[in-house]
Amino acid sequence: MVINEGLELVTQSKKTRRPQARTEKARSNMISVATSMFAEKGYDATAIRDVEIKAGVQRGMLIYHFGSKKDFWKRVVDSIWSIIKSKREKHISILAKLPPEDGVKWLIKFHVTFAAEYPMMTRMISQEGAQDSWRIEYIVSAFMKPGVDAMRPYLSRALNLSDEDFAHWYYIMISASSTIFAREHEFKYLFGFKSREESVIKAHSDMLVTMLTHDSLVNKN
Amino acid sequence: MVINEGLELVTQSKKTRRPQARTEKARSNMISVATSMFAEKGYDATAIRDVEIKAGVQRGMLIYHFGSKKDFWKRVVDSIWSIIKSKREKHISILAKLPPEDGVKWLIKFHVTFAAEYPMMTRMISQEGAQDSWRIEYIVSAFMKPGVDAMRPYLSRALNLSDEDFAHWYYIMISASSTIFAREHEFKYLFGFKSREESVIKAHSDMLVTMLTHDSLVNKN
Repeated sequence: MVINEGLELVTQSKKTRRPQARTEKARSNMISVATSMFAEKGYDATAIRDVEIKAGVQRGMLIYHFGSKKDFWKRVVDSIWSIIKSKREKHISILAKLPPEDGVKWLIKFHVTFAAEYPMMTRMISQEGAQDSWRIEYIVSAFMKPGVDAMRPYLSRALNLSDEDFAHWYYIMISASSTIFAREHEFKYLFGFKSREESVIKAHSDMLVTMLTHDSLVNKN
Repeated sequence: MVINEGLELVTQSKKTRRPQARTEKARSNMISVATSMFAEKGYDATAIRDVEIKAGVQRGMLIYHFGSKKDFWKRVVDSIWSIIKSKREKHISILAKLPPEDGVKWLIKFHVTFAAEYPMMTRMISQEGAQDSWRIEYIVSAFMKPGVDAMRPYLSRALNLSDEDFAHWYYIMISASSTIFAREHEFKYLFGFKSREESVIKAHSDMLVTMLTHDSLVNKN
């Protein structure tokens, strides 16, 4: 995954903008290669020098551009979440137009489709959620909590869930919608077919919608 | 977590067996400290020397006892799975005595309770499932596949699931039963209460049983 692949071509014809564009490309290359490194190997196993080598930039560039490994990690995480943040406003307008039952189904389908498209995000959260550190605190306070706070009133009303029930429902939903894709190699070894294929994604979404919205859950209170 | 804590006392009165007991204690200490290191930080970020220091053994002991980092990792994973393997035979005799519907419920409850007690196992699988390597291949072929093969006929019959449906049901079940505990710090930051408490474990199990066994799933074919 390399962002701004076409940039070089544009800048070659505009000599004056070349250094700035190069800087941008170096920054985005570092963020791009580090996303999978942080998500798959974790923070401690990701060496600054390895990121620079993989991104094809000179030694020292990472600290020059981002200040510290900690600040760089935050920049990588911000960059992943900017994708979901940009969709959040759109969600609210879609949900406002749907009857609650359809809205809940739509939200579940969205989570499944998104998790299949961006397995790196689930890997990053699983990686950091495994231990207590400033990193999981950052992810929760900057991204997960605002998302949960935005969804909770809508879902709790539609499904008639108490705050505690909602916590359970939410963890069942986010894990069941994403693990089959985040652990795609394990799934392939185990069942012999690929999880991130359109028909498999749809089947997963259908089963999950049935489970997460069925009557005995909705009407239990 | 230190295995064989009481061993020192026994061996002090039996001078001749002391060196052997010390060796056993050194081996089990290394396995014990490495379990959480491998699960939380991953294979690459876990240094042999750090395991030796944490286990309180001399430099060089890990390779002396286990041959290589790769063989040591396998030994750690074998040790975690020996817990679940020992329960598998017991399961089969329990399930044989229950009506299918109760058997399925019992299996789901078992997975939730086990995941709450041993979050390290989920962390280890998530850690390794995030990328393709000899490690996830080993975990799947040595442990997950035999478990799935043992459960599949029973569950598919009880829930009337095709092989493909079973793959989805299985991933929903294993992820939804364990993530809330494996990512306990994230859960605490997000919802303000602890997931690995008896009442919370029970509430989680109850909601999951309802979702995973309800009629429209069972009778859909």
